[in-house]
Amino acid sequence: MGGGAEREESLVFQPKFGADGLVTCVTIDAGRGDVLMVAHMNAEAIEATLTTGFVHYWSRSRGALWRKGDTSGQTQRLIEMRVDCDQDAILAFVEVGGDGGACHTGRRSCFYRRVEVEALAARLAYLGDARGPGLQRP
Amino acid sequence: MGGGAEREESLVFQPKFGADGLVTCVTIDAGRGDVLMVAHMNAEAIEATLTTGFVHYWSRSRGALWRKGDTSGQTQRLIEMRVDCDQDAILAFVEVGGDGGACHTGRRSCFYRRVEVEALAARLAYLGDARGPGLQRP
Repeated sequence: MGGGAEREESLVFQPKFGADGLVTCVTIDAGRGDVLMVAHMNAEAIEATLTTGFVHYWSRSRGALWRKGDTSGQTQRLIEMRVDCDQDAILAFVEVGGDGGACHTGRRSCFYRRVEVEALAARLAYLGDARGPGLQRP
Repeated sequence: MGGGAEREESLVFQPKFGADGLVTCVTIDAGRGDVLMVAHMNAEAIEATLTTGFVHYWSRSRGALWRKGDTSGQTQRLIEMRVDCDQDAILAFVEVGGDGGACHTGRRSCFYRRVEVEALAARLAYLGDARGPGLQRP
């Protein structure tokens, strides 16, 4: 396949998989617009996602294809998929089934803590709200 | 270091770096709320980001620490950093300097194409608008 420029300006979908056969997928709540989770897809997961309309990932820990929500009910219906310039990262805009959550800890989003810097040491703080203070939102 | 549960519920910031010493960073426009780019950070990049207030990445292709915007002027002032449940992915909410863009192709976001499925073959289409049709936004 072509080099960098071809991947960047082409309308051919040719994901650039890493040595592990994976690309990064950032999953976004299509309604709220915030990031729910970051996970990985191999070629099989991308194909299953596009053909079924429900998001599939590759579980690195289990070494298996994983249809999100099969056990939790937190399915992710694909609304739109985007790819970045060099095609090694994907955005999946989804509508979440079940209780609307995505994180295995029971929270809606996996990003429930902010990093705070105090006296040059970084520590975490729970977010009171999914969008949190400090962010300028329209 | 602790196991999974400790990373998930602790307020200690202990990024889970991969075998390559990196975590994934998803960079979001703090004003608009959309994803600008996906890149990687090592421990040095995280520390430089938190101490200077400007986002640094690790360039895998160049094998070097990289202060975003040093050549392009498209600096990224850190507004807030979040970490996910298992601490192997980071969200950086930023205010972009220069012309407000983030992609080396000259576009504001690296995610300027959507994946379209036609007769079971996936192809790309340019986004007319950063938010695009098909997405339900408040």
